[in-house]
Amino acid sequence: MNPITKLFNIDFPIIQGGMVWCSGYKLASAVSNAGGLGLIGSGSMTPQLLEEHITKCFATTQKPFGVNVPLLYPHAEEHIHTIIRTGVKIVFTSAGNPNTFTSLLKENGITVVHVIANSKFALKAEKAGVDAIVAEGFEAGGHNGREETTTLCLLPIIRKITQLPLIAAGGIFDGKSWLAAEILGADAIQIGTRFAACKESSAHDNFKHAVRNAMEGSTQLSLKKLTPVRMLKNAFYEEVAKAESMGANIESLKLLLGKGRSKKGIFEGNLTEGEMEIGQAAALLSREESASDIIEDLIAGHEAAKRKVAASTKP
Amino acid sequence: MNPITKLFNIDFPIIQGGMVWCSGYKLASAVSNAGGLGLIGSGSMTPQLLEEHITKCFATTQKPFGVNVPLLYPHAEEHIHTIIRTGVKIVFTSAGNPNTFTSLLKENGITVVHVIANSKFALKAEKAGVDAIVAEGFEAGGHNGREETTTLCLLPIIRKITQLPLIAAGGIFDGKSWLAAEILGADAIQIGTRFAACKESSAHDNFKHAVRNAMEGSTQLSLKKLTPVRMLKNAFYEEVAKAESMGANIESLKLLLGKGRSKKGIFEGNLTEGEMEIGQAAALLSREESASDIIEDLIAGHEAAKRKVAASTKP
Repeated sequence: MNPITKLFNIDFPIIQGGMVWCSGYKLASAVSNAGGLGLIGSGSMTPQLLEEHITKCFATTQKPFGVNVPLLYPHAEEHIHTIIRTGVKIVFTSAGNPNTFTSLLKENGITVVHVIANSKFALKAEKAGVDAIVAEGFEAGGHNGREETTTLCLLPIIRKITQLPLIAAGGIFDGKSWLAAEILGADAIQIGTRFAACKESSAHDNFKHAVRNAMEGSTQLSLKKLTPVRMLKNAFYEEVAKAESMGANIESLKLLLGKGRSKKGIFEGNLTEGEMEIGQAAALLSREESASDIIEDLIAGHEAAKRKVAASTKP
Repeated sequence: MNPITKLFNIDFPIIQGGMVWCSGYKLASAVSNAGGLGLIGSGSMTPQLLEEHITKCFATTQKPFGVNVPLLYPHAEEHIHTIIRTGVKIVFTSAGNPNTFTSLLKENGITVVHVIANSKFALKAEKAGVDAIVAEGFEAGGHNGREETTTLCLLPIIRKITQLPLIAAGGIFDGKSWLAAEILGADAIQIGTRFAACKESSAHDNFKHAVRNAMEGSTQLSLKKLTPVRMLKNAFYEEVAKAESMGANIESLKLLLGKGRSKKGIFEGNLTEGEMEIGQAAALLSREESASDIIEDLIAGHEAAKRKVAASTKP
């Protein structure tokens, strides 16, 4: 019995990461309909827009789905109340303190998962009463931990200190990396990058093409003096890198970043001025797929990888 | 048949990374005697000292061993000639161009392995005629690639573009991460950090204790404007980080680094002023072990991890 499929009542322990400008109801319902857990990414939404997406998600899938709430975004508290009011049953919180909303959500019968990047926050989340944790490594796209611990090292560290159901994130891409994550202690996987580039993602086609063309070294963790974020290297990235190299302070980096950079890059497809948040796994992507193609490929690849190990194991 | 055990004529596909100030003949021969492949790390040695260590290694093991030559060090060319003259049969080159010495080494009947951190250098090494490659991820200690690609992402990228025997390095620590690396395409593993802290390592006890006390986030890739290097965070690291944050240029970083920093940290055990090169896997270390303890634990852990996968696989 897998603790994550049991917790969420889903067919496969595959979670689609909630991502700004990528994961509206279309992507979330497609993933949930294919047997995984779809997450609406509320970080890029106004409260009204989130409510619309929740309503549409209920209309397009009978299966469980959830909402990801990055706690650093201005609408986080309103989002939590929208989620409670509309009857969403699963919430992933990230980029903030797990104590802030976990009790309130649990009192309302909601399953709570918190995203962490180190053992300190894993223990804090456990103490706050979350039902599961996502351990996200350095290779993940978007906002990311300051310790820069990779998924390969983070998973065994977290598995050692907590018995909570554990979801691996960062660099997980196919059935092989899924099995690798399981061996390192994960009960399930969360995939962002591959779903960000799929058909049902609401990202701009320019962004999806750029992601599919990425190589290793095409992304970099940047803006570490603000909130570290992994993005594709483009003209905007180079401008930030140059400023950082010359010792730019927090204020001047904030000015350089401005407002709406991730919308410009991901949703509007401005490849030069936008912030193109994506993970290192982009280097492994090449073809256009649907969410259900991805789930099918993951399951087939995972089974094949397991059989290969089993075939080389003495009874 | 494992292509790496066959290539080196060793019992287990486990390689002890060649490390400055840690891996003299004592460590290399202990690893080789336990059935892995020990490497003398020539980066911290004068040509005379390397010759001494090679002579002593031949005297203390009948098994195959090799020498690692970081090509960025001043004695690299002399080291290559010492290796040829003394009859060493395996060389790992790193941190430089695989074209420089591969032909010369191969003409002298030496098996050549090159360490890479991206696909460009993997293809370059293949073209140069190497017998195998080490793909080293961002989590590895010491000098490291600029793309910052993690082992989890790097292995499948490299496996896709070459059929050369592939050795995984960076974050590999136990039988579980070994099996994970195999699933991702590796034929063998190279372990640095865990051997750097073991009994036969020539590192100072202060250094070994500091490594065993490390947590996640205790190491950082630093000095990126010079040659990126992963080290423990100590007073020296903080001084570098502060200078980098304020935009220090290459010249002032070179001045700050000075000469002999890694010797001071690793060999002399100066925990404040030394450069303490080590990988993220330090966070997973806690007890004192011998090289043969490590090999035994790896083999038992690998078998157990395989059996666990096999037990959950439908026939």
